[in-house]
Amino acid sequence: MKHYKKYDFPVEKIRRFLEPGPIVMVSSSWKGDTDIMTMGWHTVLEFSPSLVGCMITAANHSFELIRKSKNCVINIPTVELLDVAVGVGNCSGRDVDKFELFGLTPVAAQKVSAPMIKECYANLECKLVDSKMLNAYNFFVFEVVKAHAPKTPKYPKTFHYTGDGVFMLSGSHVSKRRQFKAEML
Amino acid sequence: MKHYKKYDFPVEKIRRFLEPGPIVMVSSSWKGDTDIMTMGWHTVLEFSPSLVGCMITAANHSFELIRKSKNCVINIPTVELLDVAVGVGNCSGRDVDKFELFGLTPVAAQKVSAPMIKECYANLECKLVDSKMLNAYNFFVFEVVKAHAPKTPKYPKTFHYTGDGVFMLSGSHVSKRRQFKAEML
Repeated sequence: MKHYKKYDFPVEKIRRFLEPGPIVMVSSSWKGDTDIMTMGWHTVLEFSPSLVGCMITAANHSFELIRKSKNCVINIPTVELLDVAVGVGNCSGRDVDKFELFGLTPVAAQKVSAPMIKECYANLECKLVDSKMLNAYNFFVFEVVKAHAPKTPKYPKTFHYTGDGVFMLSGSHVSKRRQFKAEML
Repeated sequence: MKHYKKYDFPVEKIRRFLEPGPIVMVSSSWKGDTDIMTMGWHTVLEFSPSLVGCMITAANHSFELIRKSKNCVINIPTVELLDVAVGVGNCSGRDVDKFELFGLTPVAAQKVSAPMIKECYANLECKLVDSKMLNAYNFFVFEVVKAHAPKTPKYPKTFHYTGDGVFMLSGSHVSKRRQFKAEML
């Protein structure tokens, strides 16, 4: 599998990876129990502090691991990992060790206890900063406290979920920078 | 400009359009004042009721129109509208009539007072159902109460924002349906 050489990435700029809306893989750990989930219901909420909101179904094994450990890693997979992400999304961490089953490599994060997934393009270390919306919406608010990404490619080839088992693969990139006001950049 | 012939679309399936993470154009109206904003910070929150969460900066002219009227339309533009969406995002409804300036056609919605944008691929009529997260996060929770979309193409050619004036255009679609458990579809 592809391994990316990663560097510190500014946390206030992680919209580059999340705002386009890719499927992410969320890794978590609590008292020796580790899980990975495949997830598409997330949004950027703020640049600085770097806030991200995620809806995670309470029935998911990861839900309690994240709620109790108060952290997770949001990993950005690229298209080589599409089949792995589908597999991860179609079994439960209650039954299997997903790192082992799917040949993924856990790497220790620097600021959180959850493991990072080495094979993913980028890894966002997240602390749970607001759990008030869990009861009503299973909605976690995380602060990205450290981010790791490679210098190339600048834009990962991601996959995006439409439901019904169908994914959209990211296409080409186009700059409209000259049409932006300076303060909008 | 391209005009799509639209039909009722099941509100519990609008993830097809929103979960991949496209830039959307949000239209709103309050006491004769109408606005459009370009927005990328949104997430699906629930299938049924069909809930969507959106972060809209309080400084945006649309913020008060939506907060006061308690509704909006989330319009899904396709790539032909990329320059229009950039233009809409780089001026304020305080200064200009964006429908007029950008040659967009307002169409009356059926269940909300906000106008729909005719030229967009799909239109999601939304009612504001929870404003408790406005103070902390400028985060609106909407229920999609009616949706309009064409039958073809099934998947619109959308654009997704990465920051710095750069957009990702949606690429090809691939089905992994056979790798899903029935209950995950």
